[in-house]
Amino acid sequence: MITERVKMEVIGLEIPLISGNEDYTLAELISKYPLKDKDIIVIAETVVSKSEKNVILKDTIKPSNEAIELSKKLGKEPEVVQVILDESNETVRLGPNFIVTETKHGFVCANSGVDESNTSKGIKPLPKNPDKSANEIRKGIEEITGKNVGVIINDSMGRPFRKGSCGVAIGVSGVCGLWDRKGEKDLFGRELKTTEVGIADELAATASVVMGQSNEGIPLVIIRNAPVPFNDGTGKELIRKKEEDVFR
Amino acid sequence: MITERVKMEVIGLEIPLISGNEDYTLAELISKYPLKDKDIIVIAETVVSKSEKNVILKDTIKPSNEAIELSKKLGKEPEVVQVILDESNETVRLGPNFIVTETKHGFVCANSGVDESNTSKGIKPLPKNPDKSANEIRKGIEEITGKNVGVIINDSMGRPFRKGSCGVAIGVSGVCGLWDRKGEKDLFGRELKTTEVGIADELAATASVVMGQSNEGIPLVIIRNAPVPFNDGTGKELIRKKEEDVFR
Repeated sequence: MITERVKMEVIGLEIPLISGNEDYTLAELISKYPLKDKDIIVIAETVVSKSEKNVILKDTIKPSNEAIELSKKLGKEPEVVQVILDESNETVRLGPNFIVTETKHGFVCANSGVDESNTSKGIKPLPKNPDKSANEIRKGIEEITGKNVGVIINDSMGRPFRKGSCGVAIGVSGVCGLWDRKGEKDLFGRELKTTEVGIADELAATASVVMGQSNEGIPLVIIRNAPVPFNDGTGKELIRKKEEDVFR
Repeated sequence: MITERVKMEVIGLEIPLISGNEDYTLAELISKYPLKDKDIIVIAETVVSKSEKNVILKDTIKPSNEAIELSKKLGKEPEVVQVILDESNETVRLGPNFIVTETKHGFVCANSGVDESNTSKGIKPLPKNPDKSANEIRKGIEEITGKNVGVIINDSMGRPFRKGSCGVAIGVSGVCGLWDRKGEKDLFGRELKTTEVGIADELAATASVVMGQSNEGIPLVIIRNAPVPFNDGTGKELIRKKEEDVFR
């Protein structure tokens, strides 16, 4: 009456703190785990940014007048606000103690995704090109291990209508980002209601359950046996352009 | 150098098609699976609605003039539009071929969550009170099996800013909905950037990866060994009220 059809595993891994000064790459580090073909490797964006030395020291930042004015409104340091502005295309919403921007990548999120936590010093923007980072890590792993894997770089973002942050995929390689299921049929042979699935975001959220947000120290997750397409997906394909968004 | 810290399992289960005419309850059906304490049971909302006979036959619906007018604009049947209107508090966005409403529960989603797929006849709204449904299923399972479990009823919803639908939790019982991590510290002892986590939505998305959206026939998922709080969470606590939402 009840039949097991899929068994997916989600394995949370502790790794050393990454500073960017390691004598190994992330691909080399991840390859130390006994990977299998079609494993999906989810990495917290903070680890990727740090490994790419994408951390800005506060005393190197000269805040503009705009950043200084805005910093009073937001209750943030002017240097942090300067980085938020530098990382953004435009401000989407501005409130008494928050700023939502569109980042240069096209993500709509709080503070341009700029992070002060889990960094010992300095201000940490999102990785410059998360799809490229994911691709490099995937290729590195495949070279070392000979395994075909997917790589997702995830972050936690808030969203309209619902409370709480959720894991989303900002960089993707080797696995589907946006899954177009148009033309597929439901159990009664009718066309599907939902034809596009944000599958890499669902995988990113899956990893977030295990990563936690706090001092868990689990920034690396392997998702094994996921029933999803392995193709040339990207994180970019998950971004809804402003012109196509009725909520912008 | 790499240490396994968590191993979560996500088990997709096939069950018989549910019509609401079964001589067993969902709790009785689910209890046939060898459950463990702290398993989280995720059930697709469509199964819950059908088991509650919450399906409206088309020939019992008398569309209003408003529904008839709107149906031309939306390219949907007037009966379907009538149910969408009946299920909504208000229209949030209306376009040439879509309608986003706030449902009576408070969810902001396309078509008030009303579904025509995976139903052999009739129109299927969301469960009337998903938290109550989740609670009843959880209590039923605990009575039969003696196991303490969490129950989440999930659906797929689109979202602003990003393409593709994602699984979200519309009903929750026995497990955390919105996880408040205020005051917790990161690896460097700093307060967390993200203090509220939509953990039940992340669990709902996890289950969606395994459920699929199509004719997979896997509407029931067990998440085992999830590192999350088991408490009196609800789906309601994930809803951001209109007054608190800068995107409404």
